[in-house]
Amino acid sequence: MDFSSYFPIWNQLTSDQQNKLSSGAVLRSVSKDTIIHNGSANCTGLLLVRSGQLRAYILSDEGREITIYRLFEGDICLLSASCIIRSIQFDITICAEKDSQFWVIPADTYRQIMEESTAAANYTNEIMASRFSEVMWLMEQVMWKSFDKRLASFLLEEAAVEGSDSLKITHEVIANHLGSAREVVTRMLRYFQSEHMVTLSRGTVTLSDRKKLEQLSHS
Amino acid sequence: MDFSSYFPIWNQLTSDQQNKLSSGAVLRSVSKDTIIHNGSANCTGLLLVRSGQLRAYILSDEGREITIYRLFEGDICLLSASCIIRSIQFDITICAEKDSQFWVIPADTYRQIMEESTAAANYTNEIMASRFSEVMWLMEQVMWKSFDKRLASFLLEEAAVEGSDSLKITHEVIANHLGSAREVVTRMLRYFQSEHMVTLSRGTVTLSDRKKLEQLSHS
Repeated sequence: MDFSSYFPIWNQLTSDQQNKLSSGAVLRSVSKDTIIHNGSANCTGLLLVRSGQLRAYILSDEGREITIYRLFEGDICLLSASCIIRSIQFDITICAEKDSQFWVIPADTYRQIMEESTAAANYTNEIMASRFSEVMWLMEQVMWKSFDKRLASFLLEEAAVEGSDSLKITHEVIANHLGSAREVVTRMLRYFQSEHMVTLSRGTVTLSDRKKLEQLSHS
Repeated sequence: MDFSSYFPIWNQLTSDQQNKLSSGAVLRSVSKDTIIHNGSANCTGLLLVRSGQLRAYILSDEGREITIYRLFEGDICLLSASCIIRSIQFDITICAEKDSQFWVIPADTYRQIMEESTAAANYTNEIMASRFSEVMWLMEQVMWKSFDKRLASFLLEEAAVEGSDSLKITHEVIANHLGSAREVVTRMLRYFQSEHMVTLSRGTVTLSDRKKLEQLSHS
């Protein structure tokens, strides 16, 4: 599968626009834990994920993190090209959670196409609205949901992404996803273990009672 | 001043598009505390503020509120027309904080213009990116800033909006802006009073030491 089959509105572009995009896009392969885009440092371009998994997060001045969304095969990241839309006034960091392949579409190329094509401009609206919706969901979680429920939801989501109930993940990494501190995660996981919802061992969290976790996350 | 002078990209539209917009837009006047748009209930249309002040907020299942942004003269609200962009998957409520006048632009009319005009589509991108940026700012505040700092910032912002250091505002209303509980606000305001930063009297909070409040909000 090549670039054109991954790019969602390919057939709505003129052949000139298609040429610009496919000649501008560069395929990159990175290994797990590579930082792909770093806050305000640069305008990396749009990312179109071919394989693997990326994570977008924000950082506090003290170095705390919270995941704002994740990108899987076929997803597009717009916020790594925030220079194309003047009103985007915040910085995110993007790193590879797994070995990943993605195309980088230069910001200038995309901006030109957005200025010519209503299909591209409206598609950009849809991407931004999706990410905005994810952040609003997260906002509601952070505001109204207690930490035990958020942790239960995260473990269930992670098990779905990994296709396994046995998660190789440290308490530190979980804390960085949820915008919390490692000690808080450790304390809550121990409580979950005492309630027979998970089993803990070095570097692994195993979901031992999904039903109970689901009840907690929806309560 | 009429509609055309308030609508930002008026001169980039064709006369046909201009006619559609100005014949579709309806001027509404509402009094303070009117609910203008109510979550998922409807697709009210875009709002273009002529005068007054609107507040957009989200509601928890338990009825708690948090302000996500405010709209002043000349501002456009897109999220009250969330049906025009499929990927907007969240609900907001909009109410008038003061007696207000605004135009309602029907969602269908605006959608048609967005589909024809790259200027309109890209302008829509800019509006959404602005609101998205405000929510990201709020997210960072909620995640990383302690409540005393957020309350100090809110009082200073409110004094700037009102052009006065004497604010007619209840602790309940402050709590609804900040996504907190009334008792938490009362406790913190009493602490501010004991530190000589504010003076409290029935229904009024007076900023008595702006410098100290500013230091706190930036610490």
